[in-house]
Amino acid sequence: MSHGQLYAEEGKRKRAAVAGATGYSGRELIRLLIKHPRLELVALFASPDSRPAPIEQIHPHFSGLLQLDCLPFSIEAIKNAEVDITFLATPNEFSHDVAPELLDLGLTVIDISGAFRLKDAANYPRWYGFEHKRPDLLQEAVYGLTEIAGESLRGARLVANPGCYPTSIELPLIPLLRSGLIDTAQPIICDSKSGVTGAGKTPTANTHFSEVYDSFKAYNLLKHRHTPEIIQCLELDNKAVLIFSPHLLPINQGILSTIYCRLVDGATYGSVRDALRQAYRSHRLIRMFENPQLPEIKFVVNTPFCDIGWVVDQENRQLIIISAIDNLLKGAASQAVQNANVVFGLNEAEGLL
Amino acid sequence: MSHGQLYAEEGKRKRAAVAGATGYSGRELIRLLIKHPRLELVALFASPDSRPAPIEQIHPHFSGLLQLDCLPFSIEAIKNAEVDITFLATPNEFSHDVAPELLDLGLTVIDISGAFRLKDAANYPRWYGFEHKRPDLLQEAVYGLTEIAGESLRGARLVANPGCYPTSIELPLIPLLRSGLIDTAQPIICDSKSGVTGAGKTPTANTHFSEVYDSFKAYNLLKHRHTPEIIQCLELDNKAVLIFSPHLLPINQGILSTIYCRLVDGATYGSVRDALRQAYRSHRLIRMFENPQLPEIKFVVNTPFCDIGWVVDQENRQLIIISAIDNLLKGAASQAVQNANVVFGLNEAEGLL
Amino acid sequence: MSHGQLYAEEGKRKRAAVAGATGYSGRELIRLLIKHPRLELVALFASPDSRPAPIEQIHPHFSGLLQLDCLPFSIEAIKNAEVDITFLATPNEFSHDVAPELLDLGLTVIDISGAFRLKDAANYPRWYGFEHKRPDLLQEAVYGLTEIAGESLRGARLVANPGCYPTSIELPLIPLLRSGLIDTAQPIICDSKSGVTGAGKTPTANTHFSEVYDSFKAYNLLKHRHTPEIIQCLELDNKAVLIFSPHLLPINQGILSTIYCRLVDGATYGSVRDALRQAYRSHRLIRMFENPQLPEIKFVVNTPFCDIGWVVDQENRQLIIISAIDNLLKGAASQAVQNANVVFGLNEAEGLL
Amino acid sequence: MSHGQLYAEEGKRKRAAVAGATGYSGRELIRLLIKHPRLELVALFASPDSRPAPIEQIHPHFSGLLQLDCLPFSIEAIKNAEVDITFLATPNEFSHDVAPELLDLGLTVIDISGAFRLKDAANYPRWYGFEHKRPDLLQEAVYGLTEIAGESLRGARLVANPGCYPTSIELPLIPLLRSGLIDTAQPIICDSKSGVTGAGKTPTANTHFSEVYDSFKAYNLLKHRHTPEIIQCLELDNKAVLIFSPHLLPINQGILSTIYCRLVDGATYGSVRDALRQAYRSHRLIRMFENPQLPEIKFVVNTPFCDIGWVVDQENRQLIIISAIDNLLKGAASQAVQNANVVFGLNEAEGLL
Repeated sequence: MSHGQLYAEEGKRKRAAVAGATGYSGRELIRLLIKHPRLELVALFASPDSRPAPIEQIHPHFSGLLQLDCLPFSIEAIKNAEVDITFLATPNEFSHDVAPELLDLGLTVIDISGAFRLKDAANYPRWYGFEHKRPDLLQEAVYGLTEIAGESLRGARLVANPGCYPTSIELPLIPLLRSGLIDTAQPIICDSKSGVTGAGKTPTANTHFSEVYDSFKAYNLLKHRHTPEIIQCLELDNKAVLIFSPHLLPINQGILSTIYCRLVDGATYGSVRDALRQAYRSHRLIRMFENPQLPEIKFVVNTPFCDIGWVVDQENRQLIIISAIDNLLKGAASQAVQNANVVFGLNEAEGLL
Repeated sequence: MSHGQLYAEEGKRKRAAVAGATGYSGRELIRLLIKHPRLELVALFASPDSRPAPIEQIHPHFSGLLQLDCLPFSIEAIKNAEVDITFLATPNEFSHDVAPELLDLGLTVIDISGAFRLKDAANYPRWYGFEHKRPDLLQEAVYGLTEIAGESLRGARLVANPGCYPTSIELPLIPLLRSGLIDTAQPIICDSKSGVTGAGKTPTANTHFSEVYDSFKAYNLLKHRHTPEIIQCLELDNKAVLIFSPHLLPINQGILSTIYCRLVDGATYGSVRDALRQAYRSHRLIRMFENPQLPEIKFVVNTPFCDIGWVVDQENRQLIIISAIDNLLKGAASQAVQNANVVFGLNEAEGLL
Repeated sequence: MSHGQLYAEEGKRKRAAVAGATGYSGRELIRLLIKHPRLELVALFASPDSRPAPIEQIHPHFSGLLQLDCLPFSIEAIKNAEVDITFLATPNEFSHDVAPELLDLGLTVIDISGAFRLKDAANYPRWYGFEHKRPDLLQEAVYGLTEIAGESLRGARLVANPGCYPTSIELPLIPLLRSGLIDTAQPIICDSKSGVTGAGKTPTANTHFSEVYDSFKAYNLLKHRHTPEIIQCLELDNKAVLIFSPHLLPINQGILSTIYCRLVDGATYGSVRDALRQAYRSHRLIRMFENPQLPEIKFVVNTPFCDIGWVVDQENRQLIIISAIDNLLKGAASQAVQNANVVFGLNEAEGLL
Repeated sequence: MSHGQLYAEEGKRKRAAVAGATGYSGRELIRLLIKHPRLELVALFASPDSRPAPIEQIHPHFSGLLQLDCLPFSIEAIKNAEVDITFLATPNEFSHDVAPELLDLGLTVIDISGAFRLKDAANYPRWYGFEHKRPDLLQEAVYGLTEIAGESLRGARLVANPGCYPTSIELPLIPLLRSGLIDTAQPIICDSKSGVTGAGKTPTANTHFSEVYDSFKAYNLLKHRHTPEIIQCLELDNKAVLIFSPHLLPINQGILSTIYCRLVDGATYGSVRDALRQAYRSHRLIRMFENPQLPEIKFVVNTPFCDIGWVVDQENRQLIIISAIDNLLKGAASQAVQNANVVFGLNEAEGLL
């Protein structure tokens, strides 16, 4: 019986584990799974060298909501938990190392890290700093930009959950590129701004409160590892230029991307609307904001939505897209659950609204 | 005797008034003038229908620092104050109405509003919502981007202080455009992010704490009134396209602009450095940040500096400039004082460091 | 048939309206009611002089989640909506004026304003600035501090939802006072800190972003209108002194109260725990945090919980209580729904977790 | 010739070094010393195992303002720098270890750490976690609460700069206690709220942006190490109870303390004003805010002031004091410079306004 099979028919709840439960994406996964009607959260894991602790000690947010111990990660412990699916909210190399073993157990794996996002293994040393040992799994992994991946997710064994920045950029651009509305002779410029949780929970000089608060900066210009992911997913040809510029907002959650490109001759504000509507008509978690209302971070924080708006300078055929997501949700945890939903044949929005 | 004449020779302090002293730019002007060795703050004005009040009641920040009443604005009161210079930190139309009268008194006027920035009076109804009655003063006014204006400021009667966003965009771009380093066949894209004080002190739904805090948004896309100012000042030809996109940061002070453009063939990271160094070699208030350090808002807040950094994607000749200023200082009050310094023949940085 | 009667029996969803839907408490009420399994949100109202508008235009947060027009408030319109219950998230005087008419329609009214909280009508001119015309309703109204009010809420016609600050102070103190653990010969000092949404959505100088951000202040010391509400609810005798000091935090949601009082001789950390456990054993929305973990605002934001922790200086019998709530939820909207649940015989936490 | 002697007479600038220049207090010391007319910043030091680096690389804020290398700390290097005074903005144990050696060189030492604040060496193991080896220096050190220490600072060799919280509490309370206005039969309760820079620059879980932002908490209740410092400095008798409760504000700079105590019979709002005026009449850096204006953090950030305001509940003789300082300035760096000024016989506010 293949992965995810027959879920809807059986009506049984699938048993889920979260690895990396101590981090921010892990925390949001827990929050979503607690209230999911068809997935049952049965096991939580921290790093292999951690000590078991009640989850409410790690995240006091869950006091009174969840009584479950967070255990040191081990394949054995996952096996004992008899889970159907494991969400990996773990570091890239850790995911790379353990995903194959989990697949061998016959589980579905949704990996929130970047370990299986790039199709070409040759990209890993440069962008992720390690040698990828499983090019076969890179081919097999389904890139889980849910609305675009669609049926290819159904029954998938391994889902590579997209990066947060790429999600905010790819969702608006893919339908426009596929509809031929974008003139790629002009660079596509993605000026993205993210809250700090995207950098994870480990204290560093770059995420020290006093360094981030009341300020704003660009970082990793021309060298952020999400760049090859975006280029791969947009299927740009070699001549097209994509510039991706991440910036750090002094807030916790949310990404807003301002995307600049040129429309082909004849394309208009309405053409953009038509292409997006066509693509996302049956997808509830994409919301289109029409003029004059544009997406703002506050409208998406703590939601699973990707909001998209745009303006057009018709005379110069310049298109400016504004997209917004919660980096921890549509950019991580809720998209992971959305992917699990599709893998198991459920409605993609199940348990998310 | 012309305006500003003989200042250095006389060694006397010039008498200064601030109109619009209750606002944020006014407050910063006061802060700067209190400690200026060559300008003496002698009068403060609020709107004509206000009531006299000690400035420390309006801005308790100045308790123990300044004992001066803020008076209702009137030409008569300014006359009585026997000032040499008036800083107008007042609304556009108010500046438009009173500047001519102040000039008639023989004063130097530094106008922080937009009332005298655009050379073409025809632009005012569209961008500022009022008919401009003094095209002659639009011609006479010196656009006070200090480092660029240079000697043309000396002895000027009327200085149009640049807008905050334009300052952050024009200072890095002008030397590059003048050096012929920018290929204007590709649009120049200015993605700017500003703190909230730029919107002034009047409470509105858009500046209500709970609407701005913990969020981020773009606004006035393709229709912000700073657009014609930037285009005028960059002296772009008709075929060049400039896109200016303002965004609202959930902080008080600071603007960071991320500017995208294409270099001409052969231009490099080093060409940019050379052009900027050449232009600003003798200007202390422009700081160049070289790789890998880039400007951040925290480095310029409460300073009169404009910080400039950049990266180059040589293969695609793409240039990304990062500039940062404090919108209330280099974007308003400190540039106004800097302009006053030059008008009066002082060192431009006098009293600012 | 009395108010709230037979709900559980019928199993039918009660029809609910929200008046004051444009404000922050109104927004949170909508958010809660959308997902409530036993209450059906059927009508939204703004001020009587407003114009009908889709709620997603007013709160774009609800785009894709709720299609309902927000109508100008009128008794007629409420009548037409055939609702069982109306939540009033309206100004004090407005609630005072319309609640009687709504009651005459036979509806249950949960009033989030202060219009019916004080038992003594004589307090209204001083603390609320208006003459109260319905002392009879002041007597009838049930003060909806849910866990304390208990069965008295069942079937109530009119519920006066507690203030946000009082909720954070009364919930920890009442069980301790009732158990005789507090020595009221020493003043009870309540040092409370609140986010800005508590001040509502109307832009004012006090809630202007640039005035609140990056700062902190006390306000309304010794004269905040929540003081008589707290004193009434704690049932303090005349000799006891209660000091309530509100402060404004530069955040949106959340209240943390630090409460200082003296224990009676013999009382300990454990006595406090026992009294609180005893009182709230069957109440899921009160969470006790035991040493060394104390409540923090981040643990309660966007939740219906009141978190309580405490430390004891045994030598000096000094007790310090820390309590935390989300001012818009347990301090307003979720407590309103919690009250509606009890009025209708449902589990108090229904639809809230 | 004793320390600090003859400064004013000579008119020469004193040569100053800052140790701990990489931290936040160090940074503020640099900022103040750059513009001080009578102190000359000649040397900067980081930890002994650091590598020399231009200060503008460590704090890009100083780009264009200061060209000085930050060196690894060593007694030898300090000796070579031929300084008259060293500011220690270093960890407690480090200050404890190096101060004696610096004194042996004949330098004035202003120690910003807690290493020499407590008179009783027996307190160090408990509150600071180390054995104090120089009880003689504890006796000699002048506790540098400048306005209170007064002439005892003149010519001092070793100044123990007060803690940030203690400064905000002691300055308002000392004159009231000395005037006999406070009835110490009721506990003195100090509910203090501080920005995050007080915790220093080392990244920790407690100062990670995402843990602090948008939240608020109490911490170290009943066990903060500033407690014995406050008690010592207030000279409270054994029966008096002082409660000190620190809280963490989600901002960078500033402390606001709300202090609760009982007035003696007959004392009034006016008595408090008289006592404070009397004490601070000749001290410019204490500002009194009279009703209805109270201190707020924004009025003191980036200033050397301590602002004090108060309200009185006359019926119950309850006094509430609000005091505010910038924790990095009056709570650390500016008070250190203020102390240096007095040591050297200068005006205490020299270079600070």
